[in-house]
Amino acid sequence: MRCEVVAIGTELLLGQIVDTNSSWIGEQLALAGIDSHFQVKVGDNFARMEATLRQALDRSDAVICCGGLGPTQDDITRDVIARIMGVEMRRDEAIVEKIRVMFESRGRVMADNNRRQADVPLGATVIPQMPGTAPGLICPVGDKVIYALPGVPYELHEMMRETVLPDLRRRSGQTAVIRSRVLRTWGQSESGLAELLAARVEELDDLGNPTLAFQASGIEGIKVRITVKAEDEAAAEEVLAAEEAGIRALLGEIFFGVDGQTMEHVVVELLRARGQSFAIAESLTGGLMALRLSEVDPEMTVFRGARVAPTETSGTSAEEPALAAARGARQAFGSDFGLAVHLEDAPHLEDEAAGPSKTVALAISSAETERATRISLPGDRRRLRNFAVISLLNYLRLTLSRG
Amino acid sequence: MRCEVVAIGTELLLGQIVDTNSSWIGEQLALAGIDSHFQVKVGDNFARMEATLRQALDRSDAVICCGGLGPTQDDITRDVIARIMGVEMRRDEAIVEKIRVMFESRGRVMADNNRRQADVPLGATVIPQMPGTAPGLICPVGDKVIYALPGVPYELHEMMRETVLPDLRRRSGQTAVIRSRVLRTWGQSESGLAELLAARVEELDDLGNPTLAFQASGIEGIKVRITVKAEDEAAAEEVLAAEEAGIRALLGEIFFGVDGQTMEHVVVELLRARGQSFAIAESLTGGLMALRLSEVDPEMTVFRGARVAPTETSGTSAEEPALAAARGARQAFGSDFGLAVHLEDAPHLEDEAAGPSKTVALAISSAETERATRISLPGDRRRLRNFAVISLLNYLRLTLSRG
Repeated sequence: MRCEVVAIGTELLLGQIVDTNSSWIGEQLALAGIDSHFQVKVGDNFARMEATLRQALDRSDAVICCGGLGPTQDDITRDVIARIMGVEMRRDEAIVEKIRVMFESRGRVMADNNRRQADVPLGATVIPQMPGTAPGLICPVGDKVIYALPGVPYELHEMMRETVLPDLRRRSGQTAVIRSRVLRTWGQSESGLAELLAARVEELDDLGNPTLAFQASGIEGIKVRITVKAEDEAAAEEVLAAEEAGIRALLGEIFFGVDGQTMEHVVVELLRARGQSFAIAESLTGGLMALRLSEVDPEMTVFRGARVAPTETSGTSAEEPALAAARGARQAFGSDFGLAVHLEDAPHLEDEAAGPSKTVALAISSAETERATRISLPGDRRRLRNFAVISLLNYLRLTLSRG
Repeated sequence: MRCEVVAIGTELLLGQIVDTNSSWIGEQLALAGIDSHFQVKVGDNFARMEATLRQALDRSDAVICCGGLGPTQDDITRDVIARIMGVEMRRDEAIVEKIRVMFESRGRVMADNNRRQADVPLGATVIPQMPGTAPGLICPVGDKVIYALPGVPYELHEMMRETVLPDLRRRSGQTAVIRSRVLRTWGQSESGLAELLAARVEELDDLGNPTLAFQASGIEGIKVRITVKAEDEAAAEEVLAAEEAGIRALLGEIFFGVDGQTMEHVVVELLRARGQSFAIAESLTGGLMALRLSEVDPEMTVFRGARVAPTETSGTSAEEPALAAARGARQAFGSDFGLAVHLEDAPHLEDEAAGPSKTVALAISSAETERATRISLPGDRRRLRNFAVISLLNYLRLTLSRG
């Protein structure tokens, strides 16, 4: 089963919007065991859209196209698909009514051109989920199919999950389920990780199922993805759980989380379980650590606060001022732990490219104990800041778990 | 002149990496007056890469492909292009030496497989800029051309700017220069903006040059792009300056910056010019405002600091607590101004989709005066936070400029 992705919109070609939909769809297809060999961006042009969709249908079994379902004259995805299907369009009055009600609930009046969004090629089916004003469509072409989805990401995600993926699976006749799980690590290089898991990778290469893959995701550390094909959900879950346990034993304390569990999530939940809280002092990281923590703890019950201020470091070692800042944060916010990270020497930070590596000090303060360490990090500002955040949180994680 | 973009890499199709290169290249091409009708992602597969590049050459005059120039067995862009050119590959020993020296300067030894990166199809030229270990290539195919660039963004950017864009312009025989300038606005809807500029847009539609376009960029406000075609740089600059002055007069105080001048940049520079400083109290925005400010003022000479802590709002109006927080930030950091933004009512923030709109209070405190106001913002967390940051900074900008 092959499924091609076509993203529609001149604004995508002009770089006014980055096409993140194709990547997301590609990831979902891969997880569902469906191949996607090509992904194409094309502008709002009838002839070029038609040529692109015809070629995609020609070399794949299914096509997911996103965008061009809006109410304006530029939005011609419906028309192009009707041409390819060789059918007329009919206006679905039930959809018109649905759109009208949607506008009304937001206190607005439906414009006349929104009626165009209710046009459906004859023989196409409307996707039941409709979180926005653009209905998605399932359009059969011979024994193949085009799915038309809106370009708005959350609308597209809902339709993909609820309708398109199940429909693709049904069409592919695939009864096996494919499931995967990502184990997150911090503190080891990709080659070091490969060495740790070499024996198990070799065993699995012989078995063929489950499989292991490394994903170097840069600022979030290196991930190990376990993928399993099984008869049903329960069997898949069983294999995943067993494999996860084995891999975690090999990884030891460089493993920190599963799937969506970021380092900040893990540290916040670790402290929440202990009934403890923490606060931070930021200089080098300029608010990035607070932002990442407040995303996972928006009520700020565990992450109690941050003070962002220029560093007052002087001298060669930054351990002492980092400790003082950590202690200050703990006291100012009345939390159990205080954390700080300080950059040594003059902070001239390159914007991009590889500047020389920098030394930073990590510090943790609690009423019982204080500790600090120094590490070397990449020199460009973006990576330096992100690495500093995750390194400091990891330092707290290890401190807590080692007791 | 048409130029197609081909992004190479299975990891792009699998959604492990979002392809931002194509968008960036598309934007550069548009600014250079070169059409780009298709942008394709294809995996590391010889036959599919060859078919994609052949089709691209067929329907365009030039192709920019990015990725697949690394040292591993997966990296086959060089080989595919040699096949299309119908030539052999030769190893460029000068490039081998350059790569070796690059590794040495980082205290590392060049691996043997890095030699592959010095393979050049006969008849191709190496792009002189080489910020990483992957040389870019200019590969003529008949009277058309394929540019092969590395997938690492900053390497690709440098080669595009210095070599590919000038080469494309030379090939297109285009002697006119195309330049554009973006005027940034905040505080007016797209339709309101269109109304303000309607008369001028109509005049320019008749003239045909320069042109005006609106770009709704969401969380950064609406931009007005002026694009001009002229005989040379100086003539283009003259038209841009005159048009900018005219448009700014029509926009009034909703105009805040040009091109890369974000709201935080503008506010920091405004205060820097006055020799003044400010500090902020964050709750709702959780560190986002500090992060954005520290990006434009990393030494923190104007933006003096932030306190990120949960809000202590109670009661219906948030103006009073916001004012108290602004005052507190000003005093704690010893700055001229203190700023704060508070969310009214219980802060249950939706992650995505459109939650009901929220009311926030903006407050500014200085030794001379204190002021606050309340505005309504979109309810999903990401937009709410970003809109709150830019709205608060805009409030300070207007306060300063109105005197």
